[in-house]
Amino acid sequence: MNQAHSSQAKPMLSVFALGGVYEIGKNMYVAQYGDDIIVIDCGSKFPDESLLGIDLIIPDVSYLKERSEQIRALIITHGHEDHIGAIPYILRQLDIPVYGTPLTLGLIRGKLKEHGISDKNLHTIQPDSEITLGKLPVAFFRTNHSIPDCVGISIRTPEGTVVHTGDFKFDLSPANGQFPDLHKMARIGEQGVLLLLSESTNAERPGFTPSERMVGERIEEAFQRARNAIFLTTFASNVNRVQQVVDAAMLTNRRLLLLGRSMVNVVKVASDLGYLNIPEGMIVEPKEAANLPRERLAVLCTGSQGEPLAALSRLATSTHPLISIEPGDTVIFASSPIPGNEKNVSATLDHLYLLGANVIHGGGSATGMHVSGHGSQEELKLMLALMKPRFFVPIHGEYRMLHHHRQLAESVGVDRENIFIMKNGEILDIQDQQAVRTRQVPAGNMLVDGFGIGDVGNIVLRDRRHLSEDGILIVVITLSSQDSELLSDPDVITRGFVYVRESEGLLNEVSRLVIFAVEELQRSDQDWNWSMLKTKVKDSIGGFLYAKTKRRPMILPIIIEV
Amino acid sequence: MNQAHSSQAKPMLSVFALGGVYEIGKNMYVAQYGDDIIVIDCGSKFPDESLLGIDLIIPDVSYLKERSEQIRALIITHGHEDHIGAIPYILRQLDIPVYGTPLTLGLIRGKLKEHGISDKNLHTIQPDSEITLGKLPVAFFRTNHSIPDCVGISIRTPEGTVVHTGDFKFDLSPANGQFPDLHKMARIGEQGVLLLLSESTNAERPGFTPSERMVGERIEEAFQRARNAIFLTTFASNVNRVQQVVDAAMLTNRRLLLLGRSMVNVVKVASDLGYLNIPEGMIVEPKEAANLPRERLAVLCTGSQGEPLAALSRLATSTHPLISIEPGDTVIFASSPIPGNEKNVSATLDHLYLLGANVIHGGGSATGMHVSGHGSQEELKLMLALMKPRFFVPIHGEYRMLHHHRQLAESVGVDRENIFIMKNGEILDIQDQQAVRTRQVPAGNMLVDGFGIGDVGNIVLRDRRHLSEDGILIVVITLSSQDSELLSDPDVITRGFVYVRESEGLLNEVSRLVIFAVEELQRSDQDWNWSMLKTKVKDSIGGFLYAKTKRRPMILPIIIEV
Repeated sequence: MNQAHSSQAKPMLSVFALGGVYEIGKNMYVAQYGDDIIVIDCGSKFPDESLLGIDLIIPDVSYLKERSEQIRALIITHGHEDHIGAIPYILRQLDIPVYGTPLTLGLIRGKLKEHGISDKNLHTIQPDSEITLGKLPVAFFRTNHSIPDCVGISIRTPEGTVVHTGDFKFDLSPANGQFPDLHKMARIGEQGVLLLLSESTNAERPGFTPSERMVGERIEEAFQRARNAIFLTTFASNVNRVQQVVDAAMLTNRRLLLLGRSMVNVVKVASDLGYLNIPEGMIVEPKEAANLPRERLAVLCTGSQGEPLAALSRLATSTHPLISIEPGDTVIFASSPIPGNEKNVSATLDHLYLLGANVIHGGGSATGMHVSGHGSQEELKLMLALMKPRFFVPIHGEYRMLHHHRQLAESVGVDRENIFIMKNGEILDIQDQQAVRTRQVPAGNMLVDGFGIGDVGNIVLRDRRHLSEDGILIVVITLSSQDSELLSDPDVITRGFVYVRESEGLLNEVSRLVIFAVEELQRSDQDWNWSMLKTKVKDSIGGFLYAKTKRRPMILPIIIEV
Repeated sequence: MNQAHSSQAKPMLSVFALGGVYEIGKNMYVAQYGDDIIVIDCGSKFPDESLLGIDLIIPDVSYLKERSEQIRALIITHGHEDHIGAIPYILRQLDIPVYGTPLTLGLIRGKLKEHGISDKNLHTIQPDSEITLGKLPVAFFRTNHSIPDCVGISIRTPEGTVVHTGDFKFDLSPANGQFPDLHKMARIGEQGVLLLLSESTNAERPGFTPSERMVGERIEEAFQRARNAIFLTTFASNVNRVQQVVDAAMLTNRRLLLLGRSMVNVVKVASDLGYLNIPEGMIVEPKEAANLPRERLAVLCTGSQGEPLAALSRLATSTHPLISIEPGDTVIFASSPIPGNEKNVSATLDHLYLLGANVIHGGGSATGMHVSGHGSQEELKLMLALMKPRFFVPIHGEYRMLHHHRQLAESVGVDRENIFIMKNGEILDIQDQQAVRTRQVPAGNMLVDGFGIGDVGNIVLRDRRHLSEDGILIVVITLSSQDSELLSDPDVITRGFVYVRESEGLLNEVSRLVIFAVEELQRSDQDWNWSMLKTKVKDSIGGFLYAKTKRRPMILPIIIEV
């Protein structure tokens, strides 16, 4: 193979991810040609339980910060958190224009407002927009997914065209009439695609994902059958599903109560922008809702993942201040649990059955109340067949999804050596129709805890983990500055370790061990210092407590010299 | 309805759960007639993430401790953790005989040995045993499940017969020839059953659970197809599946390496007792295994739930000291993830694909590599139809499973008013063919953390949770005992809160706030005490830190008077 960057004079095309491969979430991709950098998406992801106290994970953008004057745009494919969640944090560090469709920008605008950031950098595009970023012409094509107003992106570089699909499925009978633009995709493919980046979420799932319209039919049937109040939960951002709930409510002469902050927010943004059509007088306020006959009421609420503070979870535990679920009411989960949320969802279900509700759950094929927003294998193959790329990089997914997507690409005729499973930060350089993996740029998890970004590191997390398991035992040792004699008995304080009132003997013993340690050091002939005393105290208390309790609290000796 | 306990002279039948209803796990049921108490099962359950640092949950047996001289037996239905896990803890508190089938006792014996407890209380029964406990004749009937040697129990009281099913399915072509004893169940039903307690795990699942033999066929096919080494993971206690793996290995001329402590243990116990038939020379030691041609090697290992320390997880991350997975090897998950373990399993899968293994996973119908050990709806109905109970109490399950089991019982003709969904500790009293819910006895979660039982309560857990989220900040304030003047600047120490080297300014500010608080109290005319100073310090530091960092560490002021 020729050395791809042999010619110094000619610019090179470099493409890489700063987040979104070998993981689900935190999507951020970069295409660079010469001096022009285009960034695609800027997502966050939620921490798992091992990241104690962390609120959010965002991409490391140090590569971009060093080249901020070359960044021509951040283009957002759609308004989900894993594509927009990091924008407020990144815009504080980078002053760059952000491009998106109207609904996407509407959701970003709300986010910026919460963070007190101006929306001056936001620029609206439409699927038929054509813009030039630096020297690069950029076009879009409409796709569909579980939120309206999604686009894929095509970037024309002198080296060839780069296509990024965003999230997509091929819903050929979409609930909102936003058809995927098959013809434009076909034209782009016909004109030649150098590199395709395509999403891999459902690459392990055979077949073709059902249409959202099917869910609408199931919802309508359930509304027809229900005799008392109906509670339906789904992701607020699934505006098309919300529309289908509105339609079912209208058909069955029910008024609609919205519960949950994100539900109220998204419905407002989507209605204002014309993505949601709610008849005058259909929305009911909580106070009024309580006085409606139960069979005239439908409640659309957050909580489909069993999130402990969401509306449905509070309804299920009868702790919602405004309204309650009564025996004979119908509760519909128009959702599937995301891996990791199964136990919370299961707890919510249990509470709902206890309340005597008729519960419809199970997602997917079991009830027809949910379909995925991501294309299955046949749809991923359809995208590959339309685009006929020379090079292919599967994106959006854990390794095994990328792996299966590679197999799909091979099955439709992409050469295996032209398929690259890239890690975050790993750069693919393309020149003269040759693609080579080259450098690695910084790409990792930045942790957000409260206001701080990146200041919670491994040591802090390790401490939190230690504290969470067996608590802490603090020993305060007061020494005389003259002769290092103990001025009083050591104070022993514990938190999260044992019940003090049941463990007095144990803690007295700890105090005795500390006195013993100090005395032993004093008796010895060697010079000793505080650090030696601390080590000695930690060792003797640690061993003693483990033998007595099989626990290992964090031991923190504090020496005060007076 | 007559008052059930109107007749003082005549003894009453009382039945209740001390664990196992409104939950999965920690099974323990009690049947009491007059002075004779029979306890059934003694299980543990694993804590969820909210119970930080807790190792195990066991039933509260304070009711039994007060009546220990009336307890005639603890009968164990089978050897799973949720039925035997609490035995070592309970036997330390209660000196009572334990009855079980040979394999069940074999597994209990291992457990007692680990805890240094004698096995003098263990008594072997067979499915055809008939014993008399106190004045009550007790018989058994063979069932099948995902571990051999399971029995159901029938207790004949003067009031009528009580039947407890244990865990069961109706595997009519069992892999080990231990057929469920349909005829004995039919006879028991014919003779009349007053009260049936039947398990509800799969009460939401329609149909009939497939036979374990089907899994054997799939395993054999996969062994035939595989060209390199095979790694198969399943629960060690699923002895019949282990036998099918042994058979497949023999058929394809592979030797078998066992990895994982529980796999090695269970295989030893089951082989010694004749439940597992492993040909001489089939088991290979790790050292020898490394020298075998890959196509002659099969590895049977723990880790089907992605447990971070189990054999398969270490193999997946290439950190197992003895052997490694190589590209082209086959890895089979003969299991389904238990709710809550999905993320760990998913991480393991990802690592296995990265190693280039052919992975067969998905459980259930997707691959046929796993079937449930619990009967589905038609089997639960079959048990109800065989037993024809007057009264029915669904057991083993969260509320919604009990709820669905009640519907099944109604569908086979049990009167709805004769079905009782009971809470743990809630007593059902039966006399003269009348059943009434009466008293409630203590029944809760005893938490085991290290050696301690029950000494980790809500306060300790709340502290651990608080510590785990934002860490701790300790302020040591040294005051003069003469005039309560500060003797030195306060010491500020943090763990799990922020990186100290990046937060010097913040911590200096905290120190300054403490000095200010002390001075303010001194300047004020009021009498003040340490508790007022502590409150003042907590409030001012807490507000300051939240404003600066949006975090709320635990704040612990320590006042030293010298």
